[in-house]
This record gives sequence, structure tokens and C-alpha cells, in this order.
Amino acid sequence: MPTLSFFLEFASTYSYPAAMRVAPLAAAAGVTVQWRPFLLGPIFRAQGWQTSPFNLYPAKGRYMWRDLERLAAGLGLPFRAPDPFPQASLTAARTALVGLDEGWGEDFCRAVYVAEFGEGRPIDDPQVIADILRGLGVEPTAALARAQSDEIKARLRAETDEAQRLGVFGAPSFVTDDGELFWGNDRLEAALAWAARKQ
Amino acid sequence: MPTLSFFLEFASTYSYPAAMRVAPLAAAAGVTVQWRPFLLGPIFRAQGWQTSPFNLYPAKGRYMWRDLERLAAGLGLPFRAPDPFPQASLTAARTALVGLDEGWGEDFCRAVYVAEFGEGRPIDDPQVIADILRGLGVEPTAALARAQSDEIKARLRAETDEAQRLGVFGAPSFVTDDGELFWGNDRLEAALAWAARKQ
Repeated sequence: MPTLSFFLEFASTYSYPAAMRVAPLAAAAGVTVQWRPFLLGPIFRAQGWQTSPFNLYPAKGRYMWRDLERLAAGLGLPFRAPDPFPQASLTAARTALVGLDEGWGEDFCRAVYVAEFGEGRPIDDPQVIADILRGLGVEPTAALARAQSDEIKARLRAETDEAQRLGVFGAPSFVTDDGELFWGNDRLEAALAWAARKQ
Repeated sequence: MPTLSFFLEFASTYSYPAAMRVAPLAAAAGVTVQWRPFLLGPIFRAQGWQTSPFNLYPAKGRYMWRDLERLAAGLGLPFRAPDPFPQASLTAARTALVGLDEGWGEDFCRAVYVAEFGEGRPIDDPQVIADILRGLGVEPTAALARAQSDEIKARLRAETDEAQRLGVFGAPSFVTDDGELFWGNDRLEAALAWAARKQ
């Protein structure tokens, strides 16, 4: 099966609907999705942004929140903006890498997004991450300890470097086996169609 | 019939597919489209940008050109990037306002986008605008003279102010009768659905 790299950032608002939609759409398209958490912070800082463009450009930010609210309503997803925004996503991203290694990663990613943008919970709070893990039947202590290991820290840095090398400048982004980049929840269907036709 | 304001900027790449798609989709949705040329320049400068964000952020710019090329191919539209980008769009926007008053405006808008992003022609050249007008059976001298009138200049400034007041920060943008803002070619269908359901 062709694969599609799904680059997700837990601070990214539009990664929420993408994460909730990708699995059934990929199954229908016959495409294997590789979930690849990364950090946008270093990429944004490299182009001079110290925070989210939705904070830097208030008109764009106001629009995004309303647009996300409409999108969530249309998808039947809960919606509540976290405060502050963006949330620090480092712990969630590292924990997701552990989970993707151990078989509970995709469920963890979806649960983080629902907590953050469906319930407005602070995902930079290790207790919130621990709650999410317990909800998935995962013992939090070992998982959070491994999330702080040098191995996982290095892997997240490498994934962020690789995203940047592939041209990623925002999230969610999708990259096909032949290197085509698609940016945004809006491009999920196009990315899957591109991946599938290259079989 | 409900109406949808379609805010278009002739320098805007994604306004090209939106302009080519909007008429049949609006007819099918039972929505009247009000074509409203405006200028993004003043809005961009107000947030500190002296050129297009696609030039300011090269990774985003590279992606945009490839994405637009794919979109055009999918829609069966010709594609060729103009050089320089962005094109100065003042003459085209003023001429479009004349045309929208005189009944040839929508065809003119589509023809400008095809010339600019389908054929890579410089739309800041009055000869190119004159060619487009002749192709529509419009006598260029009178139209271009009226485009330089105080009335038309003031109207374009007023439309740009109104766009900003409505929250517009990019193009294309769509605003419904009840003030819902939708940004981007990707949101054309959602904007029409929103407008239609408010009938």
C-alpha cells in the first residue's frame, strides 16, 4: 500500500479536524498513514515568528477561530478554544512518539486534540496527558518517563528537521511517497488521492 | 435570492480558480454573487507586509505555486506564473469596477485571471488590459478613461475599506448577507451553502 506522511503539531488548530478525519478516509483510499508528530515552533522561529500567525495577525486569528468552530460543527466534533493559545505541545508530541512505537499512538493523538480543542483543556499539563493515557488504558508513569528519554527527544528533533527538509511550513501537512507536499486539513482528500494514484 | 459578496484581488493567485468556479456553483446553489474587486495592498501594509506573504515566506511561496499548478490541472485551467509576482493590480481592479457597472465585468475578471495566471501576461500593462477589453467587444479607450475617473478611484478605495471592515485579510474572501466570512478558494462551496441555507 502507498503511504502518506501526516505531519501533525499538537498546538495546531487545523490539525484537530485532520486528525479526526484521516483514518477512515485513508482506509477508503487504500493508503497507509504514517502519523508524524513534529514541532512548528523551530520552523516558525526560523522565519521570524515568535508565536502563532493567528496571534500575530488578529484578523486572521479571529477568522480562524470562527472557521474552526464552523468546521467542528459540520463534522459533529466538540469545540472549545484553549487558553492560552497556542498550547505548549512538547510533552504531547514526545508522548505521541512513545505511543506510536507502542501501538496506542493514533488514539492518543486524537484524544489530545479532543481534550485541547474540543474541551479547551491545557495539554501542557502533565496531569492532563496522564488522564488521557489512563483513558486509553496506558499506565502514565512509564510512558511519560520514556517521553523524556534522550531517544525520544532526539527522534522528535529529527522529525522536525525532516519536516522542514520536505518543505513543511505549517500543520497539518501531508507528504506522499514521491515527495508531493499538501498543506492543511483542506488538502487531506487531495493528498490521499495523489498517494493512491501512485500505487 | 440570497447574495454572496465575492471579494477578489487581481494580484491574488487563489482568486483565479475561485473566479473561474464561482458562477456555475452559485447558480446551482441559488445564490446571487456580487463581484467586489478590492486591493489587498493597504490591508497587507497595515499588518506590516510590504509584499505578498508568498514572497516573504519562501517555503510557503514554493508550496503555493505547486499547489496552484495542481489545482489548475485538476480544473482543466491553463497555468503560467506571471513575473514579477505579485502584479500591480490597480488598473485591472478599477477597470473591473467600470465593467461591473456596464455589464461586462464578470467576463472581464475571468479574462484578467486567465491572462495573468493562465498565460503569465503582465496585467499592469494597459495594453494587456486593452487587449482583454477588445476580446470582450468593449472599446478600450472609453473604459480605461472611466477607470481613471475620480468616481471609480473613490469606489475602489471604499470597497477596500469595506472589505477590511468586514474582517477580510486575504483573497479570495466571501461574505454572506448575515456577515459570515469565508476565506479562500477552498471555502467557496461552504460560503455558498451558508448563503443558501439562510434564504
